[in-house]
Amino acid sequence: MTNILFAASQSAWTKYETHLTTALDATGLDYTLATDLPADQVDYIIYAPNATVQDFTPYTRLKAVMNLWAGVEQVVNNPTLTAPLTRMVDAEGLTQGMVEWVTGHVLRHHLGMDAHIVNPDQTWDDTPPPVAKDRPVTILGLGVLGQACASQLSRIGFSVTGWSRSQKDIPGITCLSGPEGLRHALLGAQIVVLLLPDTPATENTLDADALAALPDGAVIVNPGRGTLIDDDALLAALPRLGHATLDTFRTEPLPKDHPYWSHPKVTVTPHIASATRPDSAARVIADNIARAERGETLHHLVDRAAGY
Amino acid sequence: MTNILFAASQSAWTKYETHLTTALDATGLDYTLATDLPADQVDYIIYAPNATVQDFTPYTRLKAVMNLWAGVEQVVNNPTLTAPLTRMVDAEGLTQGMVEWVTGHVLRHHLGMDAHIVNPDQTWDDTPPPVAKDRPVTILGLGVLGQACASQLSRIGFSVTGWSRSQKDIPGITCLSGPEGLRHALLGAQIVVLLLPDTPATENTLDADALAALPDGAVIVNPGRGTLIDDDALLAALPRLGHATLDTFRTEPLPKDHPYWSHPKVTVTPHIASATRPDSAARVIADNIARAERGETLHHLVDRAAGY
Repeated sequence: MTNILFAASQSAWTKYETHLTTALDATGLDYTLATDLPADQVDYIIYAPNATVQDFTPYTRLKAVMNLWAGVEQVVNNPTLTAPLTRMVDAEGLTQGMVEWVTGHVLRHHLGMDAHIVNPDQTWDDTPPPVAKDRPVTILGLGVLGQACASQLSRIGFSVTGWSRSQKDIPGITCLSGPEGLRHALLGAQIVVLLLPDTPATENTLDADALAALPDGAVIVNPGRGTLIDDDALLAALPRLGHATLDTFRTEPLPKDHPYWSHPKVTVTPHIASATRPDSAARVIADNIARAERGETLHHLVDRAAGY
Repeated sequence: MTNILFAASQSAWTKYETHLTTALDATGLDYTLATDLPADQVDYIIYAPNATVQDFTPYTRLKAVMNLWAGVEQVVNNPTLTAPLTRMVDAEGLTQGMVEWVTGHVLRHHLGMDAHIVNPDQTWDDTPPPVAKDRPVTILGLGVLGQACASQLSRIGFSVTGWSRSQKDIPGITCLSGPEGLRHALLGAQIVVLLLPDTPATENTLDADALAALPDGAVIVNPGRGTLIDDDALLAALPRLGHATLDTFRTEPLPKDHPYWSHPKVTVTPHIASATRPDSAARVIADNIARAERGETLHHLVDRAAGY
């Protein structure tokens, strides 16, 4: 019998219990999974750094701690933890989820779906949208997420331009870089997707000047970072723009009195574009426990010296 | 001299004249294209089933009828038509447009977008949707359009099952056929896309029995034909289903008093999923006429026995 302690918040338990049970069942292990177990009988701890468990000394037969979060900075230096520590690497959830969210919202704006989803006047206008090749989409940021989204949109047929700080070369994508490249990338864009990292250099990338370069009716899609947009400048520019669909904000949850909530040209999504999925995260953890029980090396082991 | 009669509405002529002339010129044919020609001198008819021409008997030297629409149900059983009949397969415009519409609406339902697009309570629920591979999508109909949509959804990551009358074999798609296969295809489907042709055999494919096979919360997406759904049965089943997004109806435009318009679980789109684009459709027709003149087999020939 393998004893697994789930040491995280109650809300995490609510989200994870079923998925962990399913994933652990699938491994064929004979196990117990609980939020309360005698410390000296625990083999593995599925752990969030905000758990009440902060002293690992009583866990005398502990084989490994599986961190539920990608970040381990709040546990990696805990001197009472001597067992191996793994961090969450949910490639399936994070990158794939971002591609799905971006592709979905770009297609939503491309197809003009909102006019059909909310149509109290029963308007029947059967003018079709252009096909994707006639819809220029610009992606700012060509890291792992930006490249994955650019490639997927290109495969669907969109005419995709990508901009990044350093020049990239991606098949099927028009790649631009530098300040002049940014201006050019915005000038012809009907839909702009923001996937730049959050650094001092990227703050307010979409400021009043950049927004002024966008053509009338352009749509902004921001699953990247709230800091990429000058919010006041965006609110001022919206009357001549098409729409803004925003998933990230300077303060989250977005405060109830923020003008984005009630603006008819803004859609707020609750930071879901790139999230660890309980189901795939549960499989990552269950597979890792099964590996340990078979005597194999753990995946995603934290290097204590490096700190991640 | 090849004489080509354009028999469709005046508005279709306005849309197509320039594109057809350009496309026919490109084939190098010596031709006449007009909306009025002596019947006994007509070689080809470019045809829409709502044209005034309904009796083909006077067209004594007719070599073929090129239907402008994908649907041929209003012409295939015309007993006066004995010449070969082709239907519109506009891969570039029609197929591409269908793939975009289907991919967009499947992603919309997959991501739960509607709850963000209309969110007067400012609800911030950051539970992410599952990733696409955990979202089973079933496509009924694996013709040109069904296959193209199935392949695109599979490339995005969805777990796709396809059902067709005759067994198909498509890489990456679970292919089912026959009555037992249909039941199986519906049982596990969270999103069902209807892309069957309109034939007596497909009428009311989604009847009360078929709808009862769908799991609670399942979403129906119908860009195929209005006749594929028993509307009363759907309205009765909607309380336990998730949503229905419908692009085709038995009567179009959908009558103002139809219950679909005001149903909170129904989205009406105005038959835009598979709109033929005049530029690419004109090339398809011109190329087919040129094939016939060279004595080659026509593309997209209708099988009169099957009805499509």
